[in-house]
Amino acid sequence: MAQFPNNSIAESLNHPRSNCALCAQAGGEVLWDDGFARVVLIGDADHPAYCRVILNAHRKEMTDLAEAERERLMKTVFVVERVLRELLAPEKINLASFGNMVPHLHWHIIPRFADDPHYPNPVFGARQRDGAHPLPAGFVRSMRQQLSGLLEKTL
Amino acid sequence: MAQFPNNSIAESLNHPRSNCALCAQAGGEVLWDDGFARVVLIGDADHPAYCRVILNAHRKEMTDLAEAERERLMKTVFVVERVLRELLAPEKINLASFGNMVPHLHWHIIPRFADDPHYPNPVFGARQRDGAHPLPAGFVRSMRQQLSGLLEKTL
Repeated sequence: MAQFPNNSIAESLNHPRSNCALCAQAGGEVLWDDGFARVVLIGDADHPAYCRVILNAHRKEMTDLAEAERERLMKTVFVVERVLRELLAPEKINLASFGNMVPHLHWHIIPRFADDPHYPNPVFGARQRDGAHPLPAGFVRSMRQQLSGLLEKTL
Repeated sequence: MAQFPNNSIAESLNHPRSNCALCAQAGGEVLWDDGFARVVLIGDADHPAYCRVILNAHRKEMTDLAEAERERLMKTVFVVERVLRELLAPEKINLASFGNMVPHLHWHIIPRFADDPHYPNPVFGARQRDGAHPLPAGFVRSMRQQLSGLLEKTL
């Protein structure tokens, strides 16, 4: 795995914002972390495979990053998408980066199923029904293994 | 500007899906189009600067694309983000790719303002107030000019 660029992101890791939830806390169960970014399972009851890729530095917008940092963050997002597709075969993958409330770059990667509580709406939209789409046995262990293998090869 | 890869995307441009809205229609006022993807202003009354970057071929997921295609599409998205920030200085940029209803890759790029109808919620969430944040005079002309200049340099 390539080390992340020794630049402003690396320097800022020692300067978290005390008032930022994603500087102060992991933001979920950490499945993978290479110092540059982490992949977490947020523990959403409606969407139990809902993951986030969180930059390990306080930056607001994708265009605040250097090009190599932007590419690395997106490669991480797309590896998460790929592993979720392999393990769950979802109807669709939803990707989003908002940060209106927590302006610290984090990507939502949400596998969607025709029977999930919000489908076909975004999970941020109107609820349609109850009952989460169930996860297969050993999902978290499989995620950790496949993320680690594919991210180390990709980055 | 580099030509887009002469691969499956290029071949598929002659094979639109007749039942897909984004194969059949532009999806808004086209601000830029290089054959690989187009940038459109969707004409949203609540969020008048809401843009989409739409792949000019029928593909469902980002991980269905070749790596070079994925990077090219994201570079286009980030140029739109950059130009919107320069012209509008929004509070935040929101990015999303869902495709639950129209499974043809398209990215939402939405500049957000503290006084816009949904802030701080996603625009897909609960409405908070009436009245769109106004656009500056000449916005569409400026978008066309700056997108063209920056995309031709970037891609």
